[in-house]
Amino acid sequence: MGWGDLGAFGEPSKETPNLDQMAAEGMLFLDFYTANPLCSPSRAALLTGRLPVRNGFYTTNAHARNAYTPQDIVGGIQDSELLLPELLKKAGYINKIIGKWHLGHRPQFHPLKHGFDEWFGSPNCHFGPYDNRELPNIPVYRDWEMIGRYYEDFKIDLKTGEANLTQLYLQEALDFISKQQASQQPFFLYWAIDATHAPVYASKQFLGTSQRGLYGDAVREIDDSIGKILRHLQQLGISENTFVFFTSDNGAALISAPKQGGSNGPFLCGKQTTFEGGMREPAIAWWPGHIPAGGVSHQLGNVMDLFTTSLSLAGLHPPSDRQIDGIDLLPVMLQGKLIDRPIFYYRGNEMMAVRVGLYKAHYWTWSNSWEEYGKGTDFCPGQSVSGVTTHTQEEHTYLPLLFHLGRDPGEKFPLSFASEEYQLAMERITGIVQQHKDTLVPGEPQLNVCDKAIMNWSPPGCEKLGKCLKPPESDPKKCSWPH
Amino acid sequence: MGWGDLGAFGEPSKETPNLDQMAAEGMLFLDFYTANPLCSPSRAALLTGRLPVRNGFYTTNAHARNAYTPQDIVGGIQDSELLLPELLKKAGYINKIIGKWHLGHRPQFHPLKHGFDEWFGSPNCHFGPYDNRELPNIPVYRDWEMIGRYYEDFKIDLKTGEANLTQLYLQEALDFISKQQASQQPFFLYWAIDATHAPVYASKQFLGTSQRGLYGDAVREIDDSIGKILRHLQQLGISENTFVFFTSDNGAALISAPKQGGSNGPFLCGKQTTFEGGMREPAIAWWPGHIPAGGVSHQLGNVMDLFTTSLSLAGLHPPSDRQIDGIDLLPVMLQGKLIDRPIFYYRGNEMMAVRVGLYKAHYWTWSNSWEEYGKGTDFCPGQSVSGVTTHTQEEHTYLPLLFHLGRDPGEKFPLSFASEEYQLAMERITGIVQQHKDTLVPGEPQLNVCDKAIMNWSPPGCEKLGKCLKPPESDPKKCSWPH
Repeated sequence: MGWGDLGAFGEPSKETPNLDQMAAEGMLFLDFYTANPLCSPSRAALLTGRLPVRNGFYTTNAHARNAYTPQDIVGGIQDSELLLPELLKKAGYINKIIGKWHLGHRPQFHPLKHGFDEWFGSPNCHFGPYDNRELPNIPVYRDWEMIGRYYEDFKIDLKTGEANLTQLYLQEALDFISKQQASQQPFFLYWAIDATHAPVYASKQFLGTSQRGLYGDAVREIDDSIGKILRHLQQLGISENTFVFFTSDNGAALISAPKQGGSNGPFLCGKQTTFEGGMREPAIAWWPGHIPAGGVSHQLGNVMDLFTTSLSLAGLHPPSDRQIDGIDLLPVMLQGKLIDRPIFYYRGNEMMAVRVGLYKAHYWTWSNSWEEYGKGTDFCPGQSVSGVTTHTQEEHTYLPLLFHLGRDPGEKFPLSFASEEYQLAMERITGIVQQHKDTLVPGEPQLNVCDKAIMNWSPPGCEKLGKCLKPPESDPKKCSWPH
Repeated sequence: MGWGDLGAFGEPSKETPNLDQMAAEGMLFLDFYTANPLCSPSRAALLTGRLPVRNGFYTTNAHARNAYTPQDIVGGIQDSELLLPELLKKAGYINKIIGKWHLGHRPQFHPLKHGFDEWFGSPNCHFGPYDNRELPNIPVYRDWEMIGRYYEDFKIDLKTGEANLTQLYLQEALDFISKQQASQQPFFLYWAIDATHAPVYASKQFLGTSQRGLYGDAVREIDDSIGKILRHLQQLGISENTFVFFTSDNGAALISAPKQGGSNGPFLCGKQTTFEGGMREPAIAWWPGHIPAGGVSHQLGNVMDLFTTSLSLAGLHPPSDRQIDGIDLLPVMLQGKLIDRPIFYYRGNEMMAVRVGLYKAHYWTWSNSWEEYGKGTDFCPGQSVSGVTTHTQEEHTYLPLLFHLGRDPGEKFPLSFASEEYQLAMERITGIVQQHKDTLVPGEPQLNVCDKAIMNWSPPGCEKLGKCLKPPESDPKKCSWPH
């Protein structure tokens, strides 16, 4: 989803009454970011509190490439990384992930090996091979074993967009919450739905109900489900003991727009890019009785902060033996404080940009290659800012492109290099970037090697279902990341 | 101002608490339009309830040109047009205009000759000649006579952006409302402030207070003033007897962005164009005790509706001897009804586009000429949609470009001509356009002739102030409208 997809963020159809209500009862974060313009690295950052370049969710196969965890990826989340659920266990939490995991699909990367107690969902998003039985469809797991595959046992009708997955995920969430409340155990629920990811889907009762087409139907179903989850917490009497945060892992995929892609509001470009449209996210914090209702924060936030904030809520400290990028947002949410901190915009192994206060400096610009663009792959449809949305990787490290996001949220008017404003802002930014680079210890890149043999041919549990497929011979190769 | 300039419409700085509160207490219109992408024609349409092509606020000097009323314009509002305040007089209303008139500046066009009882403001916007005494600065009137000129007696510091005009307009408004309440007379106040028009200005106490620069300072001062006006109505105990509507006369002028121009949110282009960014406006209706609080309407509305709605509120009927384009919005605001009606997007003498439901068909596209564009005049900075934001006037009358504004508010993905959806939508639209064109009787164009001799050299009252200037000899010419 994109920053502009919710009514509270100005989506002109205003079709998200439950999320808007959640914002009215909680705190709206207008300057909240994901850690990467792409899914897997963002989710790894969310769960580790660390930038992908530290936790290994990036590639060095080529410069500044977006990489993720398709079925043939060899890497995944390393045992050396400490995930939020692993740490929460120490405080007695029961942890469940519902939906998309995306931190690797080989046995050693299974979420139940990394702190989760329960899982209903899949290692990847619900994309290909779309029921082409020559290749394994993505498996759906319950806990340790698969219980079926997308398209085969969990239907997604690519023609109509109908699928009842969000309803399944909703019911799982409600049941888990009820169970935890009954057993009086603290819980962490990672509700990682994916209905707005192409191929976009919605349940029958939501199909055709949005002014925004199928994408809007999916958003409406998610919105409705979140309303039901929040009401469930209230009905169980645990809303004042439960911290809820809503956000997304990357900006709306404009490449799928308009039928399968959302809105990044006034921001430039979308998913895959380090412009605001790729990484600024809708974000709402909700904790009745604690977070004052109707709050609006301009704190620069990041999904990695949810790691540190959640630990803080559980009375735990983040690990001290490694660099943690997330900060504790409780002073922001409970006391209205503003914490000075930068936002780093990475693409693969490159820091493309940094935001400090209202200034954003681009050290590298790139949308995608001329070759891809010529074939119709466009991450910025209808938007073209000369010298900014470049189709070659442009280096600006000696004279960064600087924007003032207050006056110019759309990154359309770079400040003059000769201006006093540029000089003053860059002085501060340069120091911050220098310190960041000087102390950065990159993790071992996990997204370099691909091998068809390690796809989900025979996940655990496949025997019982008669759904084991025969893998081809191993043939590890450098993964190809075109953008 | 643009659709995206208010917090309630998703402006990321959320700096309009008073307007957002007005929306929370009233009704937000998300699909509200002005009658023209430019000031004078929009204001003429607001006060006559008629499209500029009917009330004469257009030019036939060239095809599809934006025209307005600079100081040397010979035309203005004709006596044959019936203005809202003229009609409201019949119901005993006292009418005041504060701020910008813009319907002609020669004696016969004076607002007090067209139904207003009082005036504090100026015939034009506060632009040039910026204190160049070779040409007359715009006069400021109190009722029949000028009391000074901009830059000379009413300071606007072009360097700092400081001017206290909004404070003067605010005090005038508060005083007028108090006076009317004391005399128990119904009133119509047209509060036509212009602080967000380049050169943008704000009072000292607002300068530097916005994240958005000087433009944001101006918005904040307007927002603050509107809060004070609404509270004044409440304190006088007349809020439940007073209908208040907030909107703008054209989209944000992106040509002045980012320092002097605002935001059109997710919409394409801005002022001067018939894309959504040029004509979709922020709009809020407020009438406590009548309009339910927190309403959001998707009614297609237009500034011309304020003419018909205001008459309806006063128990009057619109004139029956002429075509009125405005509709009565009371059923929308009071009973939540939706009225089926088209929106026509004109540029000068040409109907460029029409919206019917969620579909918008472009019959002509044009941003501005290659010649102007080459010199840096850009109405769509950072936006470029192939075949849509054209720099030549492109005719599509036989096969209009069709957009679905729900799925694609940014007008970036035209529907396929071959699709069934295109065929079905265009069938309906074609009938509506045909009927509109068949019955259209254009008014006499008022914006064709310019003459330096009729500038504001010696407005009434100039003698007392020693501010009369000697006009040159009359030399009427066709006005030049480049875009």
